[in-house]
Amino acid sequence: MTITAPKGFRAAGVEAGLKASGGRDVVVVVNDGPSAAAAAVFTSNRCEAHPVTWSRRIVADGAASAIVLNSGGANCFTGEFGADTTRLTAERAAERLQLQPDDIIVCSTGLIGSGDETFRAGVLRGVDAAVAELASDEAASANAAAGILTTDSVPKTALREGDGYAIGAIAKGAGMLAPGLATMLVVVTTDADLESPALDAALREATRLSFDRLDSDGAMSTNDTVALLASGASGVTPDTAEFTALLVDLCQDLARQLQADAEGASHDITITTVGAATENEAVAVSRAVSRSNLFKAAIFGNDPNWGRVLAAIGTTDAKFEPQVIDVSMNGIMVCRAGTPDAPVDTVDLTPRATEVRIDLHAGDASASILTNDLTHDYVHENSAYSS
Amino acid sequence: MTITAPKGFRAAGVEAGLKASGGRDVVVVVNDGPSAAAAAVFTSNRCEAHPVTWSRRIVADGAASAIVLNSGGANCFTGEFGADTTRLTAERAAERLQLQPDDIIVCSTGLIGSGDETFRAGVLRGVDAAVAELASDEAASANAAAGILTTDSVPKTALREGDGYAIGAIAKGAGMLAPGLATMLVVVTTDADLESPALDAALREATRLSFDRLDSDGAMSTNDTVALLASGASGVTPDTAEFTALLVDLCQDLARQLQADAEGASHDITITTVGAATENEAVAVSRAVSRSNLFKAAIFGNDPNWGRVLAAIGTTDAKFEPQVIDVSMNGIMVCRAGTPDAPVDTVDLTPRATEVRIDLHAGDASASILTNDLTHDYVHENSAYSS
Repeated sequence: MTITAPKGFRAAGVEAGLKASGGRDVVVVVNDGPSAAAAAVFTSNRCEAHPVTWSRRIVADGAASAIVLNSGGANCFTGEFGADTTRLTAERAAERLQLQPDDIIVCSTGLIGSGDETFRAGVLRGVDAAVAELASDEAASANAAAGILTTDSVPKTALREGDGYAIGAIAKGAGMLAPGLATMLVVVTTDADLESPALDAALREATRLSFDRLDSDGAMSTNDTVALLASGASGVTPDTAEFTALLVDLCQDLARQLQADAEGASHDITITTVGAATENEAVAVSRAVSRSNLFKAAIFGNDPNWGRVLAAIGTTDAKFEPQVIDVSMNGIMVCRAGTPDAPVDTVDLTPRATEVRIDLHAGDASASILTNDLTHDYVHENSAYSS
Repeated sequence: MTITAPKGFRAAGVEAGLKASGGRDVVVVVNDGPSAAAAAVFTSNRCEAHPVTWSRRIVADGAASAIVLNSGGANCFTGEFGADTTRLTAERAAERLQLQPDDIIVCSTGLIGSGDETFRAGVLRGVDAAVAELASDEAASANAAAGILTTDSVPKTALREGDGYAIGAIAKGAGMLAPGLATMLVVVTTDADLESPALDAALREATRLSFDRLDSDGAMSTNDTVALLASGASGVTPDTAEFTALLVDLCQDLARQLQADAEGASHDITITTVGAATENEAVAVSRAVSRSNLFKAAIFGNDPNWGRVLAAIGTTDAKFEPQVIDVSMNGIMVCRAGTPDAPVDTVDLTPRATEVRIDLHAGDASASILTNDLTHDYVHENSAYSS
């Protein structure tokens, strides 16, 4: 069990016919309390989906008692009809759960522009079916994890045990993985007894250090939501620093799972910049490299083309002098102080896990960005299928 | 004839053994005057190649009498040795041409990090051979156009006739095509009699409206140079607005040629944003879409996936309201006022020329960005070969 491992939660995932590929596609997660404290972070994309607009408002008061999620349609750019669908979804769940619509977070994922009457009917039917199946057992947890998947090949879950409390999570995401957030839906549950401001601070720190540093393909989604519900059922109020550390660890675990399942990828690349003047500049440099299609294609070809790394670094405003930069790949320094160092044929890029290390020699800050290579399968999956 | 069509110019392109693929790889273009007025714009990449650093200084006084260009090695991140190679190249050309080193612009293109002793010897040998072959005929012009190519499949040239004067150009570029500038070397010659400040203003306006709006793959080069040499040999001093318009037209022609020869591309995409509050915002919106790998892969698959267009628009700071945006593809409006409009299967994306039109309904400004799709051939060409 993951999402139902913390006390006070029930979940269900059912098949409502939304996904062309079949399978479970509507999920409900309920927090039975005693607390209804909640926090959430959303996409920074200005073209946000209706469920995001709805849910921002719902969690503004720091409380939420349930989440409805669907795959098989993003309900984004679907006009007033789509906005109504989100509201009706919350109203239906509230009615079935004897809650108020303002207690219900709604999340959707799938093709942008999809959200017609068939979609609406399917979601509402799914809410009914899911509420009828709510449970706290292993199957319920697994069904919820399965029901939010789209092009994912495997479910993503994580569980961390604190001192007398637990944190569980389910996640989905395989493409459009770039920050603000990485494209994803994540539901995190905990039975720790924490107020919303503490949850919010912990969640923002955790997403900053995990999902916001995953940049698989540079494309930012319209539907990203990471929601954290706290039931308080353990009766334990942990130290916030300890809770935050556990949540960071859990979110970083999920981010690695998302990276490992990125569409068509054959390398999981960690780009670490050290010696930066500030952490933000380290992030900016690593991110610029993660966005270079030429670099990403070279890694796919097992080619340690460090010139493409430097060309990407040069597009940033970070503090550095080009002639002192070092670049290593998988532990081999291929560029030292701005000049060729070890022969590139001494670098082995055949392992899936790939490490690129950049030393700017401009300070003491560092940061890593997780990305993937640019492959034939990426092009195939994103050209042959609308998603 | 193109580059030698304006009076007062000689050119040559010779084979010096720098390119693994063989073929001409060292080019010299000489301005015999009477004027030596010049202007140039360079990459905005902070990791610039040694020839860029050299040439910036050379043209700062508004004069240059010759250009040496080589393919087969970028001479970037090659340390002090590389800087010396550029200086020695200029010195050798000056000696052979009875000029001063400070009269000589130097340009290199090829693999970053390549620029060893063999490279240096080849370039110097090439300078000797090219100077010996300098001529103003058709063959000289064609050899110069051929000698700067790398992964290009065809030479790029353009010629415009003004009232009593001409403007000719050769260009290279097939990858790393993103602005500031698009990755390229361009030499423009004219026999118009204009001073350097007028040339500089005209060239900046022309590159702003042409190469800076070509964003094939989002990757910015370290070696980009566009140089304009004016001999004054026609004795004609054109109106600067007229000259600028002709130069803009010539550079836009070259930009389209670069787009058409972009590595592995199967669609030449023009992304036009209208109804923007400012021209800069129109550029920003079109550019954001041109950088979306998901959008570019969809176009490769002939899939009019307008959701990916909107997801990219949403990452910008441009003034707009999502619910009023229109998106058309090849003349079919697939999204009207933020909701699905014409069925996507009515859009024919099989032609190579593809038009995406975005109306933000936020003002009167507009701009276009030229890009390409993301294809299997792009991945193949950039993973299988170092370049």
